[in-house]
Amino acid sequence: MNEPDFIAALRALPLHPGARGLMDDCAVLSLGSETLVITHDMMVEGTHFRAQADMADVAWKLVATNLSDLAAKGAEPVGVLLGHMLGQEDARFLRGLREALEAFGAPLLGGDTVAGDGPRSFGLTAIGRATHTPVPSRSGAVPGDAVFLTGPVGRAMLGFEGAAEHRAAFDRPVPRLAEGQALAPLVSAMMDVSDGLLLDAWRLAGASRVTLRLDPTAIPVADRERADEAIRWGDDYELLFTAPASAQLPVAAHRIGSVIPLTEAPLILGSEALSDPASLGYRHG
Amino acid sequence: MNEPDFIAALRALPLHPGARGLMDDCAVLSLGSETLVITHDMMVEGTHFRAQADMADVAWKLVATNLSDLAAKGAEPVGVLLGHMLGQEDARFLRGLREALEAFGAPLLGGDTVAGDGPRSFGLTAIGRATHTPVPSRSGAVPGDAVFLTGPVGRAMLGFEGAAEHRAAFDRPVPRLAEGQALAPLVSAMMDVSDGLLLDAWRLAGASRVTLRLDPTAIPVADRERADEAIRWGDDYELLFTAPASAQLPVAAHRIGSVIPLTEAPLILGSEALSDPASLGYRHG
Repeated sequence: MNEPDFIAALRALPLHPGARGLMDDCAVLSLGSETLVITHDMMVEGTHFRAQADMADVAWKLVATNLSDLAAKGAEPVGVLLGHMLGQEDARFLRGLREALEAFGAPLLGGDTVAGDGPRSFGLTAIGRATHTPVPSRSGAVPGDAVFLTGPVGRAMLGFEGAAEHRAAFDRPVPRLAEGQALAPLVSAMMDVSDGLLLDAWRLAGASRVTLRLDPTAIPVADRERADEAIRWGDDYELLFTAPASAQLPVAAHRIGSVIPLTEAPLILGSEALSDPASLGYRHG
Repeated sequence: MNEPDFIAALRALPLHPGARGLMDDCAVLSLGSETLVITHDMMVEGTHFRAQADMADVAWKLVATNLSDLAAKGAEPVGVLLGHMLGQEDARFLRGLREALEAFGAPLLGGDTVAGDGPRSFGLTAIGRATHTPVPSRSGAVPGDAVFLTGPVGRAMLGFEGAAEHRAAFDRPVPRLAEGQALAPLVSAMMDVSDGLLLDAWRLAGASRVTLRLDPTAIPVADRERADEAIRWGDDYELLFTAPASAQLPVAAHRIGSVIPLTEAPLILGSEALSDPASLGYRHG
């Protein structure tokens, strides 16, 4: 079964109301006066990291990518649960794990340690506390809103290719936790850019049933010559959000477009209508 | 790094107070008037299930084993997050998943779906709501308490070997959720028996810093002739607990021993002092 079919089948299972129809990055669980935000991501050798990767970077990234989902909800970390498959360089893994937990204030809550053969996989469940309710979703963008991005895309791409100044962007991404918390009260929709700006913008447009019109010259990119690739590459973990055009933003952000009523294509880049998601970026498992 | 060393290293990381020092089956998170109980377990092909296993059973067991940890805390399920590696028989997996979610009233909250090569692994995070606080732990047994077990051990062993009447015990274990909730207010310590009665009793004794003296003739086993194996085999998911000897138990349970002050060995079986955990059962990753 391919991923879209599997996820469609999951949506037909008994879902918790807080699952948001499995259309969002996180589950949102209301408990009395508290609202928890919960996410779980896996990383698999060969799919999400190379066998020769520094396991300290792998552990860091496992934490950071999950916390990036919390950032998009304006949540502050409470703690994480780790699913760890034992193997080579576990001491390096623990070192990167410690560095990430300390950097982001996310203590360990629990988890599981297993043995296994073959390519390794790791899972992390991150639990956060909403700092603002209603918790931002992907689905609240309305025509008239402006579209914003907190920082440039393409740095992780250049780092992956070996550019020294961008290595950290790929190896040690930093979730935009403070920015997400500051923005949560005034965004109409928000998500983190994990799979490429165009693909994620397409998803936000779809969830909100609107069209996003992006100005390619306004999108901040790490290398202007390679803008077309940069807006299709993932792993930068900037926040993409929509807000009233008149909003006074509490954090620096680039205005990269506007929300208009749904057209035939959910995404317009300059004068080009984009309706085939296959052209928008990469999808890995 | 082997599992005990890895877990010891995890305990030296920044831990959430709710992690209970990583000495328990679950994390316990207090949030205003609510207390959440959270656990995460992985299942890996070749370690936790055979490549030829029915994927519907694998999915069921993934849910059931995590919910068994909630049962030991007297928690009721709130929902689960699934980490799924795509592969063969995903439709069967979904079928078993649905059956388990429906059977135990645990809706899906979210998760992640990934691609990968080689042996498959799955993760599940189960979130429950404590029905009684303080939430039972492994560490509260005190001398004078009696030791109880909710049902026989060895059924999963016989089912694994192919005995038709016990197949379900191995393939489709049932977490003792109702029993755990009924018992939570009056136990001094409780855990589920996942890795074998002797090994898990040894762990409970260690966490409580007492000795458990078990009467081998009082331990209910599926096959009396194979009692020595049955008390060392895992996967039965009965609840092991301690309570005052005079307690009026709300569920049927077998009294299998008593708690005494810590002796040289944390476990005494009949007249035999057991201090080497390697002789107590099997440990898989």
